Amino acid sequence: MTLATDRPNPSATASTPPLAQQARLARAAAQRTATLSTASKNAALEAIATALLQDKDAILAANQADLARAEEMVKTGSLSPAAYARLKLDADKLTGMVAGVREVIRLGDPVGRPLLIRQLDEGLILERRTYPLGVLGVIFESRPDALVQIAALAVKTGNSVLLKGGSEALLSCQALMAAIQQGLRRIPEFPEGSLQLLTSREEIKALLQLEGLVDLIIPRGSNAFVRYVMDNTRIPVLGHADGICHLYVDRAANLDMALDLAVDSKTQYPAACNAIETLLIHQEVAPQFLPAVAVALRQKGVELRGDPLCREWVPDLIPTTEEDWSTEYADLILSMKVVDSLDGAIAHIQQYGSRHTEAIVTEDTEAAQRFLDEVDAAGVFHNASTRFADGFRYGLGAEVGISTQKMPPRGPVGLEGLVTYRYQLRGKGQRVADYTGPQARPFQHRDQLNSTGLA
Amino acid sequence: MTLATDRPNPSATASTPPLAQQARLARAAAQRTATLSTASKNAALEAIATALLQDKDAILAANQADLARAEEMVKTGSLSPAAYARLKLDADKLTGMVAGVREVIRLGDPVGRPLLIRQLDEGLILERRTYPLGVLGVIFESRPDALVQIAALAVKTGNSVLLKGGSEALLSCQALMAAIQQGLRRIPEFPEGSLQLLTSREEIKALLQLEGLVDLIIPRGSNAFVRYVMDNTRIPVLGHADGICHLYVDRAANLDMALDLAVDSKTQYPAACNAIETLLIHQEVAPQFLPAVAVALRQKGVELRGDPLCREWVPDLIPTTEEDWSTEYADLILSMKVVDSLDGAIAHIQQYGSRHTEAIVTEDTEAAQRFLDEVDAAGVFHNASTRFADGFRYGLGAEVGISTQKMPPRGPVGLEGLVTYRYQLRGKGQRVADYTGPQARPFQHRDQLNSTGLA
Repeated sequence: MTLATDRPNPSATASTPPLAQQARLARAAAQRTATLSTASKNAALEAIATALLQDKDAILAANQADLARAEEMVKTGSLSPAAYARLKLDADKLTGMVAGVREVIRLGDPVGRPLLIRQLDEGLILERRTYPLGVLGVIFESRPDALVQIAALAVKTGNSVLLKGGSEALLSCQALMAAIQQGLRRIPEFPEGSLQLLTSREEIKALLQLEGLVDLIIPRGSNAFVRYVMDNTRIPVLGHADGICHLYVDRAANLDMALDLAVDSKTQYPAACNAIETLLIHQEVAPQFLPAVAVALRQKGVELRGDPLCREWVPDLIPTTEEDWSTEYADLILSMKVVDSLDGAIAHIQQYGSRHTEAIVTEDTEAAQRFLDEVDAAGVFHNASTRFADGFRYGLGAEVGISTQKMPPRGPVGLEGLVTYRYQLRGKGQRVADYTGPQARPFQHRDQLNSTGLA
Repeated sequence: MTLATDRPNPSATASTPPLAQQARLARAAAQRTATLSTASKNAALEAIATALLQDKDAILAANQADLARAEEMVKTGSLSPAAYARLKLDADKLTGMVAGVREVIRLGDPVGRPLLIRQLDEGLILERRTYPLGVLGVIFESRPDALVQIAALAVKTGNSVLLKGGSEALLSCQALMAAIQQGLRRIPEFPEGSLQLLTSREEIKALLQLEGLVDLIIPRGSNAFVRYVMDNTRIPVLGHADGICHLYVDRAANLDMALDLAVDSKTQYPAACNAIETLLIHQEVAPQFLPAVAVALRQKGVELRGDPLCREWVPDLIPTTEEDWSTEYADLILSMKVVDSLDGAIAHIQQYGSRHTEAIVTEDTEAAQRFLDEVDAAGVFHNASTRFADGFRYGLGAEVGISTQKMPPRGPVGLEGLVTYRYQLRGKGQRVADYTGPQARPFQHRDQLNSTGLA
């Protein structure tokens, strides 16, 4: 997805209701889906899966029409072949999407979970329970499968969602949404308006203004696009603009392991945000390690760049510039730097890292512990590939996004990122006046359940 | 505290280091305090307590100088008598502040707690552990005691903090900070720069710009000031601008209880954010309830305003205007409205409430459950005073603030609001390539500990 521009979308019509009105409808629906039973939500998911299979021909035909337009765009260079591939649906992909919906049925319901049950006093019971966020705004690239996945996660978590896909996928998204809506209409308790497709590009800007009506924005697209979203809304954003991850090869590293992890962290899927961009090498192991890792990485097609100290051992490296240290190549390119110590490695990471995932290779457990304690990132790894930083590999059930902000939720975020909590207090008419002053009745604060770590 | 203005502060000198530099120093200190042992942090707190008692005379003298200036301001009307009272310190208040520091010693350490320990595979262990946020920016009113409380909470949670107090309290704050620093210097492992006092008013604006260097802003002051802070920073803000809370008296309410709760929720401490501003009354009980509650509230000195239906039963109410429903009086004023149903009450609250704390009085458990399920607020109460919405009453140990945003942390926030978490992964050289593709090694995802509710 490219940056939102003012270019009008020909499919937007004057009859489109104002976005705030759509958001209010979504909000009203969310009030009802918030308390749907798990069984109802799972029935809705199964109805969606069935409807997608029934509408298969219409969905694939719509996708064909999108593809025909997209082919022209590839020819003129306004769409990348990779984006074209992501746009393309076929029977297998559709079957996979339906399987994905059915996997969400098997996930635990994150709503209504008690986190704390505390007796403040006789007959005065405080509960902290999870609750849906409300209305999500999701802006995604031209991947029709993203629409289905997000819709399924929204249904499971009792949230409403306003979805905006890339304009190249418009007809595919409309066909998928028609099937999903048809499925949902079979579940009588499921309200209208909980899933809505936005179709014009101007609606992105409008969506970002809906503070108070939209509770969370989830952008899926290029770093530049995520940065644009973060810079243009006051609504909380779940995501990350940059993924500048490092692997540090310590003086006490097992160098065979270090070589394996460097290759895996860089090449296993170089476009991923958790792939490394910079390899840091302790000066003591540089003479032995650098030539070996250069051969291994070049065999995998990696373009290697290095600072002057690296080039002492591998002279034909492309010289690095200051810009390299803060560049996410998202490609088969790696910058390398020799550091004089663990402290040097940590200082480089603190200055240039994007707080995503950082790893150390070492047999020195004390050095490893210092790295894990002192490096400030969502994930800090010892002797493991940075590519493990992923909701599925972490066993979160599903991944809504990866957050590099400091406040929770942080790192790979599962369904928990789509719920909040509320305090419920049930009493028998208790007044605060009775718990105040010299004759104050004392609180008991007796926990029946506490998974919050609170006092 | 009033809105930050461009009025220069005479005490700001050209030698003040730029704020970003101070923040970087605080950040470096936070890297060290993040891993301090609980014993070291508690020793630091005891050293602060001791130093405050030793410096008692100097602190009270500095406060006297602030009070002398403040007296003039009260005379000219530029400072309220209430603010003057909050500014004033004496030996008793200082003893109370020291007791408060020692109470923080007794709180559990929120840092380093394991939330999840999961074996992803043999020898590949994922842990999610709590960690300090980093650098806090706290802007508070002219209450010297707030400085001491915040400093103590920051020390306990391993965070650095940049503190800006009201200019009327400048000398008091400087004297308190001098004592605190003197105490901290007795703890050799405690780094310089973790607690810093900002002294010029322009620094508020500068502080709000320090995205990336400051992790959380905590504003303590008037609603207008908190709103100003929220509107002028991209750093997360813990707090709430408005506290517009409602008590709804249902058709099935025990009217004696409803009367008690209305009086307590309005008058027990009317300036508090969790006091009610509007009383909603079901039309069926209005004839009986309204005259009685009007007498009781007026006996407590409450000015009563009512909509036309209320005035049918209590004719001498001040007529409400549309503005009343979205006004936080924070005073002995109450607006009242007759609603035709539970739905009408919920709709009014959704429209005008600030998502802080909302309560229903009823003997109808089904109506109560619907209210608790459907009203979107940090706290939803049944048959209890809204004034219970408070960190100490909830048993959170300490209250850092009350948040009315949707995302966690929400409602009264204890020490948990000052920590985040990180994922630590410890392996033996595992590569993601081995867990991918047709020959993929499966994950085990075996939990040794899970208090997160994740999958």
